[in-house]
Amino acid sequence: MTVKVAVAGATGYAGGELLRLLLGHPQVEIGAVTAGGSAGSRLGDHQPHLVPLAERTVGSTDAETLAGHDVVFLALPHGTSAPIAEQLGPDTVVIDCGADFRLTDPEDWRRFYGSEHAGSWPYGLPELPGQRDKLAGAKRIAVPGCYPTTGTLALLPAIAAGLITAQDVVIVAASGPSGAGRSLKPHLLGSELIGSASAYGVGGGHRHTPELLQNFTACGATDPSVSFTPVLVPMSRGILATCTAPLADSKINSEQAYASYAEAYADEPFVHLLPEGQWPQTQAVLGSNAAHVQVTVDQAAGRLVAVAAIDNLTKGTAGGAIQSMNLALGLPESTGLSTVGVAP
Amino acid sequence: MTVKVAVAGATGYAGGELLRLLLGHPQVEIGAVTAGGSAGSRLGDHQPHLVPLAERTVGSTDAETLAGHDVVFLALPHGTSAPIAEQLGPDTVVIDCGADFRLTDPEDWRRFYGSEHAGSWPYGLPELPGQRDKLAGAKRIAVPGCYPTTGTLALLPAIAAGLITAQDVVIVAASGPSGAGRSLKPHLLGSELIGSASAYGVGGGHRHTPELLQNFTACGATDPSVSFTPVLVPMSRGILATCTAPLADSKINSEQAYASYAEAYADEPFVHLLPEGQWPQTQAVLGSNAAHVQVTVDQAAGRLVAVAAIDNLTKGTAGGAIQSMNLALGLPESTGLSTVGVAP
Amino acid sequence: MTVKVAVAGATGYAGGELLRLLLGHPQVEIGAVTAGGSAGSRLGDHQPHLVPLAERTVGSTDAETLAGHDVVFLALPHGTSAPIAEQLGPDTVVIDCGADFRLTDPEDWRRFYGSEHAGSWPYGLPELPGQRDKLAGAKRIAVPGCYPTTGTLALLPAIAAGLITAQDVVIVAASGPSGAGRSLKPHLLGSELIGSASAYGVGGGHRHTPELLQNFTACGATDPSVSFTPVLVPMSRGILATCTAPLADSKINSEQAYASYAEAYADEPFVHLLPEGQWPQTQAVLGSNAAHVQVTVDQAAGRLVAVAAIDNLTKGTAGGAIQSMNLALGLPESTGLSTVGVAP
Amino acid sequence: MTVKVAVAGATGYAGGELLRLLLGHPQVEIGAVTAGGSAGSRLGDHQPHLVPLAERTVGSTDAETLAGHDVVFLALPHGTSAPIAEQLGPDTVVIDCGADFRLTDPEDWRRFYGSEHAGSWPYGLPELPGQRDKLAGAKRIAVPGCYPTTGTLALLPAIAAGLITAQDVVIVAASGPSGAGRSLKPHLLGSELIGSASAYGVGGGHRHTPELLQNFTACGATDPSVSFTPVLVPMSRGILATCTAPLADSKINSEQAYASYAEAYADEPFVHLLPEGQWPQTQAVLGSNAAHVQVTVDQAAGRLVAVAAIDNLTKGTAGGAIQSMNLALGLPESTGLSTVGVAP
Repeated sequence: MTVKVAVAGATGYAGGELLRLLLGHPQVEIGAVTAGGSAGSRLGDHQPHLVPLAERTVGSTDAETLAGHDVVFLALPHGTSAPIAEQLGPDTVVIDCGADFRLTDPEDWRRFYGSEHAGSWPYGLPELPGQRDKLAGAKRIAVPGCYPTTGTLALLPAIAAGLITAQDVVIVAASGPSGAGRSLKPHLLGSELIGSASAYGVGGGHRHTPELLQNFTACGATDPSVSFTPVLVPMSRGILATCTAPLADSKINSEQAYASYAEAYADEPFVHLLPEGQWPQTQAVLGSNAAHVQVTVDQAAGRLVAVAAIDNLTKGTAGGAIQSMNLALGLPESTGLSTVGVAP
Repeated sequence: MTVKVAVAGATGYAGGELLRLLLGHPQVEIGAVTAGGSAGSRLGDHQPHLVPLAERTVGSTDAETLAGHDVVFLALPHGTSAPIAEQLGPDTVVIDCGADFRLTDPEDWRRFYGSEHAGSWPYGLPELPGQRDKLAGAKRIAVPGCYPTTGTLALLPAIAAGLITAQDVVIVAASGPSGAGRSLKPHLLGSELIGSASAYGVGGGHRHTPELLQNFTACGATDPSVSFTPVLVPMSRGILATCTAPLADSKINSEQAYASYAEAYADEPFVHLLPEGQWPQTQAVLGSNAAHVQVTVDQAAGRLVAVAAIDNLTKGTAGGAIQSMNLALGLPESTGLSTVGVAP
Repeated sequence: MTVKVAVAGATGYAGGELLRLLLGHPQVEIGAVTAGGSAGSRLGDHQPHLVPLAERTVGSTDAETLAGHDVVFLALPHGTSAPIAEQLGPDTVVIDCGADFRLTDPEDWRRFYGSEHAGSWPYGLPELPGQRDKLAGAKRIAVPGCYPTTGTLALLPAIAAGLITAQDVVIVAASGPSGAGRSLKPHLLGSELIGSASAYGVGGGHRHTPELLQNFTACGATDPSVSFTPVLVPMSRGILATCTAPLADSKINSEQAYASYAEAYADEPFVHLLPEGQWPQTQAVLGSNAAHVQVTVDQAAGRLVAVAAIDNLTKGTAGGAIQSMNLALGLPESTGLSTVGVAP
Repeated sequence: MTVKVAVAGATGYAGGELLRLLLGHPQVEIGAVTAGGSAGSRLGDHQPHLVPLAERTVGSTDAETLAGHDVVFLALPHGTSAPIAEQLGPDTVVIDCGADFRLTDPEDWRRFYGSEHAGSWPYGLPELPGQRDKLAGAKRIAVPGCYPTTGTLALLPAIAAGLITAQDVVIVAASGPSGAGRSLKPHLLGSELIGSASAYGVGGGHRHTPELLQNFTACGATDPSVSFTPVLVPMSRGILATCTAPLADSKINSEQAYASYAEAYADEPFVHLLPEGQWPQTQAVLGSNAAHVQVTVDQAAGRLVAVAAIDNLTKGTAGGAIQSMNLALGLPESTGLSTVGVAP
């Protein structure tokens, strides 16, 4: 089986990562590569790392150009996916890397995005309980945000096993700037980022906050709450999320926590629980679809502490998208994806 | 008044930073610069940035070499300050940048450092309530750890004003590797650090944990608790601490919190509360003795969130040490110190 | 004597660095701080590291606002300094950090900048032979470009002593992006720069090329030529220039070269020739006005090799500007400037 | 065909990169992974990014452990390959990533390495004229140094086409520290490297100098000379080499040079000549076996300027090694290797 795939938003970082991974996918043929402002240019001018596609001409992001593909990935700014998706026909698999269809609660959407809710699609985080069934055969998939992927994989086994209630969760996640895309904003300049760490979206305002809570509920939590703070640090890729939550029972210890994680992730192809005592580093997952996870219990503080590392562009966006595509198409889930990072 | 000052441990990062700042202190004459293994070498071989001292010969760290100074700074490995300090005479001002004399509770010391407690000296964090009085005229001063300085300055006004109880505090602090000194450990290699973020000392084991709690108590907390996680990120200097704690009263809002901070820090020479909405970045404090602080309230999460940025080698070590020296000697507290960072 | 100083372009990187240094200058009072687009805003919104000036209001860059100052620094885009300078009156010391008045040959200007030549002002590189006399009492000063400062200081003694002829010089200079200013260009984004090195302006097109040749001539060269390539590397500040040129005589050896450099720089306050065998690193000059230099002879290649490191924003722009201001005003040349870098 | 492969030196950076690439090679079975000091430990303790091999036990580097493999890669310190290689039998393909067998001239070896010459093996740079024939069926291969690979690919077409004579070549190459391996040396600490650029091995002393000259001769040069300076910059991987040489004829222009390069590299699977005007960046080749090259002519300087970017651990070491292995075994040259970098 060969699947013909189009990528809309091919000149951005998420689009470039989709193409990088699709080039290594044995059952994919890359069709249209499109963009908004730069239609007509060489793809190599925007993505010099994609040598085999350097001479491809960027098409325009419209229904006509995207027609005739089995799968269309949308790597577009928030709010622009819905009108395109509507024109693509119900048999096309449409996978949206943007936020438009992630949230199930229209009220959450309005509060955090300030516009009308476009709807809700099957959520592309196969590791959530029961989620693989929902993705099998799906024609529309909403790819999770990079922070929710990290925070959810860090805490899923703890919530599912009842080690924590997911009330009063605290997440502080260090991230590189590539998650913000190729946008020309002063705080994303190299001179501002190199040699500096800074928090943003502090105090509950980051748009990934309701998505984290939605996922905790999907893991089995009732009425979860989270204090989430993202921190920009000087690396281009990677998220390291430090996640803590009060223990459901003060007698829970590190061994029990580790055992629950080991059981929960025993069969997950991309979630790698490190040996006890070894903590994740983002370098080890760079460019791979792996999530590295570790957990312990801080009994003096009464909290479970879990740390997860992913590559925000791979498992956090494009790799997660392809993992979901594989499930949607009935392919082996790991096809074209790797757990091997590029380190050091 | 000219004060004759010696620096023991002059070839390390903390020693180098002490000398950098002392070179700009108008009332200091730099006397002996000493080290353990490299006595006899040129200081410029170890600290090429200290041009005016390049031709100084490194002396050996012993009582004889350190005698005859008004002030002796110790920037030595943990456990080695006490025997030196004993030989320095009661009239010498001895300022220890190591951990040996920071903790008041011998049991804390034994649990976290695994050796006998050397004792407790006046704690060099002038911003703590009543602490300036204790430092005036002091002959022995224990310089705080870099993380406790950051976390304490982030939360002090909230504790003092009763906005939080300091129970169930969570601190995640991104830091550059210079805090670990010039030690030849594999995880401190550039190839490991560049492009990577990693947590360490997770789950309550980091030695700065009891010091944070001791400080929270000094701010007025009863029976505080903290989950503290340090995260190494690829910048050579700087700490950005994200600190959250449950609100003492759910009706407290951001405006109240900000007002408490503004009041608490109105007269502090080195703590700079940013305008509302502007969040700290470590770049802005690089090389300066400033701490940048911001606070907000996340009502959905029921938590106050404060972020503080310092330079770990300046306000977090050498600058804080000189600030305390100034107080001990009766000099204006800001002498030789700056709030102006080197950015970008 | 207190000198009243204005800074035009105060919200950019060069303007910020001027203000950082001027805050530490004992004989300066900072007057107007102005900018183009952001007049009316708080300076602290743009330059959070300049705490003592945080509440200053940014004025607009016009003759009225800049009037009434003893010294006006212009840190403006190329081509905009001349009209402002004309309105400032002949008694005001005007120091232009831009390129407009650096080149003496109108043809060079037209070829590299593509516009009409505005003229030529005394060139603010005091280390050039005879240049201090030209700067004493000067009312107009053109601050050198950052690369020409570095390359010239690397090769000046070799040219002056006749070790090289300055024909067929090759310079490759690694630089951080802050020299490009706070401009919103895709290749200056953190995601593009972090983890990457890239050459630009290759093949003789960089605008600093004619300025390098002009300086080599000022050092005594006849008909010099240079192949100059700048390389962007992931650090926010710093230039490391590797400069080589054919030996004038194949018998010249490293000892002779070192001796010439030692003699040439013996009395220079800011040029620091490292001990033989120690090579410059940009970290050691960060935030300082120092230039670190080293030289050797590669006899197999028949070339002298000199390496110089400066901070592009300090000695390469704002520090050099203040050094020249000191000379123009008859102040000691080093007033308010330091040779001590912020390392590590 | 499945080839059984061993990697000696599996806990270092080069060994880790070999294993990363071999995991993606469809005709390889990974056998023994060995190391000097850490035999008996989990491979995952040293190489956390190699998830599929995490539970492998590190064996000891001796003939017994390495026996029974079709191919043995040696990623060992200089001087240690020869005794191992001797014991491996003439039918085993032995590929040495160290320097021991690269140089053909024993005198060069003695001068730069200070020990006895072990001999010379077929040189694993297939892009050299006629080299593929020498590698087909080879049982011993010396993998080139990372700098010689970069500099040679930058200048090969210019030498071969007679655009330059390769006399008075100047190469300045920015590099990340991973090329130095996981060695505990002070100048390789993150605190020293981050935020800094520094030259080393200046003046002709770097050990890759004779190898560059040997390669220029292999490209057709007579009596070449080179001034080579490596510069450490703060990125973990990547080399960007700026290479210039006097034009053989002053009438040669950029178009001619580009045309020669286009012709020379038209059929090379891993050398990618960028479109005119686009210059290499190391990010674009990260983790790939591609070399990006661009060339121009600086007529004012009378020099051709070529820039090449590679990943020092991939095309510069492990990828180049596997490319040669493919040729030695008669496999398609690109098997298991990619031209797609991980960017941004």
